[in-house]
Amino acid sequence: MTGIQPSDFVKRLDKTAEDTEVLLGKLLSDEVLSDEIFRPKRLIEAMRYSSLNGGKRLRPFLVVESAAVFGVARQSALLAGAALECIHCYSLIHDDLPAMDNSDLRRGRPTLHKAYDDATAILAGDALLTIAFDIITRDEIHPEAGVRLALTRALARASGVGGMAGGQILDLAGEGRFGDREPVDVARLQQMKTGALLRFGCIAGAILGKGSQKECQALDDYGRALGEAFQIADDLLDVEGDAAALGKQTGQDAALGKTTFVTQLGIEGARQRVRDLLAKGDSALSIFGNRADVLRAAARFVAERKN
Amino acid sequence: MTGIQPSDFVKRLDKTAEDTEVLLGKLLSDEVLSDEIFRPKRLIEAMRYSSLNGGKRLRPFLVVESAAVFGVARQSALLAGAALECIHCYSLIHDDLPAMDNSDLRRGRPTLHKAYDDATAILAGDALLTIAFDIITRDEIHPEAGVRLALTRALARASGVGGMAGGQILDLAGEGRFGDREPVDVARLQQMKTGALLRFGCIAGAILGKGSQKECQALDDYGRALGEAFQIADDLLDVEGDAAALGKQTGQDAALGKTTFVTQLGIEGARQRVRDLLAKGDSALSIFGNRADVLRAAARFVAERKN
Repeated sequence: MTGIQPSDFVKRLDKTAEDTEVLLGKLLSDEVLSDEIFRPKRLIEAMRYSSLNGGKRLRPFLVVESAAVFGVARQSALLAGAALECIHCYSLIHDDLPAMDNSDLRRGRPTLHKAYDDATAILAGDALLTIAFDIITRDEIHPEAGVRLALTRALARASGVGGMAGGQILDLAGEGRFGDREPVDVARLQQMKTGALLRFGCIAGAILGKGSQKECQALDDYGRALGEAFQIADDLLDVEGDAAALGKQTGQDAALGKTTFVTQLGIEGARQRVRDLLAKGDSALSIFGNRADVLRAAARFVAERKN
Repeated sequence: MTGIQPSDFVKRLDKTAEDTEVLLGKLLSDEVLSDEIFRPKRLIEAMRYSSLNGGKRLRPFLVVESAAVFGVARQSALLAGAALECIHCYSLIHDDLPAMDNSDLRRGRPTLHKAYDDATAILAGDALLTIAFDIITRDEIHPEAGVRLALTRALARASGVGGMAGGQILDLAGEGRFGDREPVDVARLQQMKTGALLRFGCIAGAILGKGSQKECQALDDYGRALGEAFQIADDLLDVEGDAAALGKQTGQDAALGKTTFVTQLGIEGARQRVRDLLAKGDSALSIFGNRADVLRAAARFVAERKN
């Protein structure tokens, strides 16, 4: 199906994670930019605590690999990916707060508000969200201001009230946090909460590569399919996964009585839906031929991951 | 000194506040943009609660009037001002949270987390911060993408770790929120916490108007002087002001044992410093002749305000 060996895929994924780590380490430094006054140590340290040493860096990987389809310079894509990762990291900090999901652990370490305090965590989240829009505008991302501007706007829309932040409030409403449990449209909620940033990762490459309308649409379709497959895999892992491999408790959705893809479709139905989504993603990518082999493998990786 | 009558100045200020209100009402609507999925009602309502019916709109006014120096179309400047106001409103929401200043009232109404809840307030703040970067990139702001991009980056830097968010953490550190009270450099703290956004308001006009380097520098110098005068006036009002006119308790800084311009300079020293800053602002604006009369009046208004 795909021309990429699983071991080669994992090497590529790891390499982008490493490069992203190095880049974020530089961007989130105490270096004071020309029009900044000063970068307070405590805030920078808190931002670094929650952004470095972190995860698979799937979102930057999608930016890098969707950009590679168009032959975009890797360094440009890494920078756009770092901006996206800052948004992802901010969202985890705020989601973990006592007022939100009240989580004490993240990736086996104390969450930021546990390691520091709530005020620092709120501000570090705010500052990571803000710095994403500094990073995404940088000249090194693309010589044309119009391209950087299109990326900036797409990132804002993926992250805001009509994207990730909106998805988070729908999720809380579905848990009954604002009164009675509100009915949940799982597909819409997850398109917003987790899908919007993953989808941005996929279309970012097309924006950077100045793809045709057809090519942009293809990556958008692929990104939507991948985003939904990601979430269904997440819901399946919460039911069937190995807590040790996941690094977090399973059965959380059931404990909260949450509506998920699994409660809606059943385990078999959810698995079938993932297969359908993989086929949909492959079909969207067909116009790119073997230039999209890594993206095809990425969808499989996301759908079949064990953590 | 200035060619603008006080009553004319107030009319201009009020007109921009009205126009900003109308514009924010449209921007923060349930209209779903092309690349958004849906705008959840609760989140939009919370964003509106904290952004509409609000204040003097001094920051948008500075954008509009600094842009007017260059003959920039009012509608463009209002849009950039609305983006800036979204940042200002988000910062008030997050500052009011129990984990931060724990304020129950703002402009005589319950703060957002009191009217709704903490989770909604965190998310509404996040979404206002994010939508600012959607608004500031819009085509209607300026035909050239490079100009919009420069504005976007300047807004991100004014708001982030090296600007407003950084200033807020220095303020909390000075109150002893993270252990022992940390020594406070009031001028630096306030340049970041309140000064950075006011200064952005002043340079935004120069960016929109494609001012020369000298003109940009002049508005930057003016913006710094105005920002500091604003804060000293604030510190003086906390000591000498009328709680009824202010709509909030006075003596708060003393109660918290905060280091302010007044504790550092004394009341007379602070008043003298304001006079020096007004002279500095006038001097910076001299290259614009009478085109900057409204900005000169704005500095006086800020320095002499009673609330």
